[in-house]
Amino acid sequence: MTIIEIIETKKQGQPLSEEMIQFFVNGYTQGIIPDYQISALLMAIYFQGMNDEESTFLALAMRDSGDVLDLSDIEGIKVDKHSTGGVGDKISFILGPMVAHFGLKLAKMSGRGLGHTGGTIDKLESIHGIQTELTEEVFKNQVRQHHLAIIGQSGEIAPADKKLYALRDVTATVNSMPLIASSIMSKKLASGADIIVLDVKVGDGAFMKTVEEARSLAKLMVEIGKLAHKKVIAVLTNMDEPLGYFIGNAHEIHEAVQTLLGKGPEDLNHIASTLVAHLLVQSDLYQDFDIAYDASRLVLQKGLAFPYLNRMIEDQHGDSEMLLTMPLYFSSHQVQLKSKQSGFIDRIEALKVGKAAMLLGAGRQTKEAIIDHYVGIELHKKVGDYVDKDDVLLTIYHQEKGLKEATKLLENAFVYTDHEKEVQSILDTIQ
Amino acid sequence: MTIIEIIETKKQGQPLSEEMIQFFVNGYTQGIIPDYQISALLMAIYFQGMNDEESTFLALAMRDSGDVLDLSDIEGIKVDKHSTGGVGDKISFILGPMVAHFGLKLAKMSGRGLGHTGGTIDKLESIHGIQTELTEEVFKNQVRQHHLAIIGQSGEIAPADKKLYALRDVTATVNSMPLIASSIMSKKLASGADIIVLDVKVGDGAFMKTVEEARSLAKLMVEIGKLAHKKVIAVLTNMDEPLGYFIGNAHEIHEAVQTLLGKGPEDLNHIASTLVAHLLVQSDLYQDFDIAYDASRLVLQKGLAFPYLNRMIEDQHGDSEMLLTMPLYFSSHQVQLKSKQSGFIDRIEALKVGKAAMLLGAGRQTKEAIIDHYVGIELHKKVGDYVDKDDVLLTIYHQEKGLKEATKLLENAFVYTDHEKEVQSILDTIQ
Repeated sequence: MTIIEIIETKKQGQPLSEEMIQFFVNGYTQGIIPDYQISALLMAIYFQGMNDEESTFLALAMRDSGDVLDLSDIEGIKVDKHSTGGVGDKISFILGPMVAHFGLKLAKMSGRGLGHTGGTIDKLESIHGIQTELTEEVFKNQVRQHHLAIIGQSGEIAPADKKLYALRDVTATVNSMPLIASSIMSKKLASGADIIVLDVKVGDGAFMKTVEEARSLAKLMVEIGKLAHKKVIAVLTNMDEPLGYFIGNAHEIHEAVQTLLGKGPEDLNHIASTLVAHLLVQSDLYQDFDIAYDASRLVLQKGLAFPYLNRMIEDQHGDSEMLLTMPLYFSSHQVQLKSKQSGFIDRIEALKVGKAAMLLGAGRQTKEAIIDHYVGIELHKKVGDYVDKDDVLLTIYHQEKGLKEATKLLENAFVYTDHEKEVQSILDTIQ
Repeated sequence: MTIIEIIETKKQGQPLSEEMIQFFVNGYTQGIIPDYQISALLMAIYFQGMNDEESTFLALAMRDSGDVLDLSDIEGIKVDKHSTGGVGDKISFILGPMVAHFGLKLAKMSGRGLGHTGGTIDKLESIHGIQTELTEEVFKNQVRQHHLAIIGQSGEIAPADKKLYALRDVTATVNSMPLIASSIMSKKLASGADIIVLDVKVGDGAFMKTVEEARSLAKLMVEIGKLAHKKVIAVLTNMDEPLGYFIGNAHEIHEAVQTLLGKGPEDLNHIASTLVAHLLVQSDLYQDFDIAYDASRLVLQKGLAFPYLNRMIEDQHGDSEMLLTMPLYFSSHQVQLKSKQSGFIDRIEALKVGKAAMLLGAGRQTKEAIIDHYVGIELHKKVGDYVDKDDVLLTIYHQEKGLKEATKLLENAFVYTDHEKEVQSILDTIQ
């Protein structure tokens, strides 16, 4: 078998065998096969696609290129959750304590943010003292005892995916469904969970711009999960506006806590409860989705899951007092943005809001950039709301940095309409 | 402009602008753009194609990456001929003296052979003393005075093509029509000729396997030529068997001489006269193709062109005596191959014959291999001939090396049929 034969096979539209896929993934990771042959292969894959089986072989080969978390020595049902990346997405901090309350185990490894979407670990680090690097044994023990831990990626998860992604990035081969799906799944399959719920964002602030695209991606990822003997459910959620009202690191922790205390906005309540309900049904804790959903809503309403977040923060040496007092830490420089017109809000372009937050210092423009955890944006209006001219649209919490550019972006983020608009935060479910 | 934008443009099926093509060709040749981005672009070109204009821009950009021969200081009409590579193809040695006889000028730079097709320069070097490296001034003077010179490529002709071809070779992107056409034309457009006749081989021993493929390639090359302000004609010729009866370096020189002396086989007479007649018509020396063709046949029949070959060999310090006595130099070890069955010969697979000659030492398996100029193959039967069992099909002139393997290939090269077959050596003409 040679790499040229493999390229030729895909070029001619034939499926690649498991051996071929392992051959090129391993050869590339080990530096035996050069970039220029892999980039030709990636472009051939872009044009000819890959079927579900090939995508699964690719995801598994990339998973096996690095460390795979073994959770088999933790009793109970291990679940995981992944989002394709949204603006204001603090769902993990809500979903984690909820599933922990129901007795499921969430041993989550998360990344840091780059560009317009924030990273789960960055948000967590707005809490003083928090440790996001734990040894595997400490991490697992915390999950065993208290059902929940969220830490940064340790070891090397799917280095093949990392190397391939870097190559795709500079060869215009990022937007290939099978490559995107197998990239995401390679990392998720390394997480050791039995059941995985995927939150696939749709809209201008997301990677998938249309419902059709998002649905194809979701179907493929669910199929890869099944072929890899995992239970996977994908929920398509709307990114026509940021999630919730708060964007920024400390800001999002604050809103997650408020939601866990029964004071969250409807989109967060609805999406978190939907994702949790799917996990409950897949875990056979509930037979009926609607009942599981109602139970989840009740958990939020009654604040039953908050203690699990509180305990996790304490387990990881964070200052849990901050969970309830976070607004005291928000940057004291504030600017309000007022509406220049009246009308119903049709969209709040998430991409622009995310970039604005990044410019303020809440996110990273480059990998090396240092984050300010306490700058952020608080929306006062959401899609569907009616505003009069000069109504306050949002508050910017800043430290001068990037304020001018961010304000400009935010001014342009609001799109108005003259009629009422129904907001639908969940667009489809694939299982 | 970035290379990623260029890849993306082609990936989406949009034509590349002249600036984009120059940008990537120059950037790649200068080592600024890395292999892995160019290979992704090449694969995108494979799938999305390039229109005539893009192909021309590419050919011209590759031509301009190196030396371009300037023949403007040679009076008269300068012509050139190119073959896409056949087995037993000694047409240049016949055509060159013929056009010289008619007063046209042929200043030909040729390559060496690799694989199953022999190189023009290798064949020439079977003549003792021949010089195939001349200074540009000596080369041009010879053409001025005696109308004809054939030398090895000096300087750097189209280094961009060389670099791109090497990359295509290892990324399964060789068989793209626009890339093949622009590669050939980049070198031909560097040759300084006004009129170019292209001999596009079709069949199992050729790069183009079907008439349809060959026609597409020919049309594209003619179009590139026109857009680059050259007169270009392409003739599609049959490669269902080797050209003529002789394969090997000295062997092919011998057969070319015999043809120039009026004793050549019909396929060589016909193809050489056809190509020459096209050059005569394009040069306005003749108005009517059929008359030009008849005049060309007469030149061969009367041996009028032979002195031009003889003079060229002398100009280039070769032992011209050898032209008439070449069989004395053929390897003295000979083996005859007999037919194992009776029937009409349907095909003599040129690829196998070419490989057999290479194995005997007449060609190079690797760039570094040393050629034996005097081993070769003489066919005694051609397609359409009827043979009885045990009739001699061919003679192998060898030095033991590769004999066994070559014999096996040659035995399998003959395909029989039970009915007569009409041989058509010219399949189409594109102008």
